[in-house]
Amino acid sequence: MDFLKVSSKSSPASVAGAIAGMVKDGVPVNIQCVGAGAVNQATKAIAIARGFLIPTGVDISCAPTFSDIEIGGESRTAIRIAIYVHDISRQSSAPSISGGRASGENVL
Amino acid sequence: MDFLKVSSKSSPASVAGAIAGMVKDGVPVNIQCVGAGAVNQATKAIAIARGFLIPTGVDISCAPTFSDIEIGGESRTAIRIAIYVHDISRQSSAPSISGGRASGENVL
Repeated sequence: MDFLKVSSKSSPASVAGAIAGMVKDGVPVNIQCVGAGAVNQATKAIAIARGFLIPTGVDISCAPTFSDIEIGGESRTAIRIAIYVHDISRQSSAPSISGGRASGENVL
Repeated sequence: MDFLKVSSKSSPASVAGAIAGMVKDGVPVNIQCVGAGAVNQATKAIAIARGFLIPTGVDISCAPTFSDIEIGGESRTAIRIAIYVHDISRQSSAPSISGGRASGENVL
C-alpha cells in the first residue's frame, strides 16, 4: 500500500490538494506521519481538504492507527491515517459540517 | 457544544477512555486542541479508542475543522475534531483498516 508521507515541514495546503485530487479520482488515500509536527500538518491538511471537497458533495473523515516502522534502522511508531469518503449529496444522514477553511496560512 | 479539551500534556489513554465511554453512551464527541502537541495527543487518543471500540462492533472516524477561539484575550486557531460513529457489525461496507508496509514514494 502506498502512503502519502507527511512530515512536520510539509505544506498542509499542498497535502490537502493531493488528498482532494486522489479522492476525486477514486484513489484510496492513506497518510503516514511520524512525530507530533507531522501529525499536526496531516490533520490541518485533512481540514483544508474537507473545504475543497464539501462544495463538490463529498466529505472525508479519517481513521488513525499506530504502526511500527523502521527509519534508518531504528524502530519508530508512525501514525497511519486512512481517509474515508462520504457522499454527502446522497445521504440523508450526512455528517454535520462546520466548514473547514481552505487556507494554508493557519500557523499553529 | 461541549468539547473534550485536549492539551499536549493530556494522556492519550485517558482521553481514549473518555471518547470510548461517550461513544458507548451515545453522547456526541467533539475534541478541541490548540497546538501540534495537542493535535498529536488527540490523534493518538482516537487510535487507542478505536482499539477499545472495534471489538464491540463500533468503529469511529474523525473530521477535523479549524476554529478561531480566544485564550486569555488572544486569538488562536484551534483544531476541532468531530467523532463519527460507524456500526461495523451491521454494515457490509465496513471501513477497511489499513495495514501493510510503507512502500510509497509520495513524500510531501
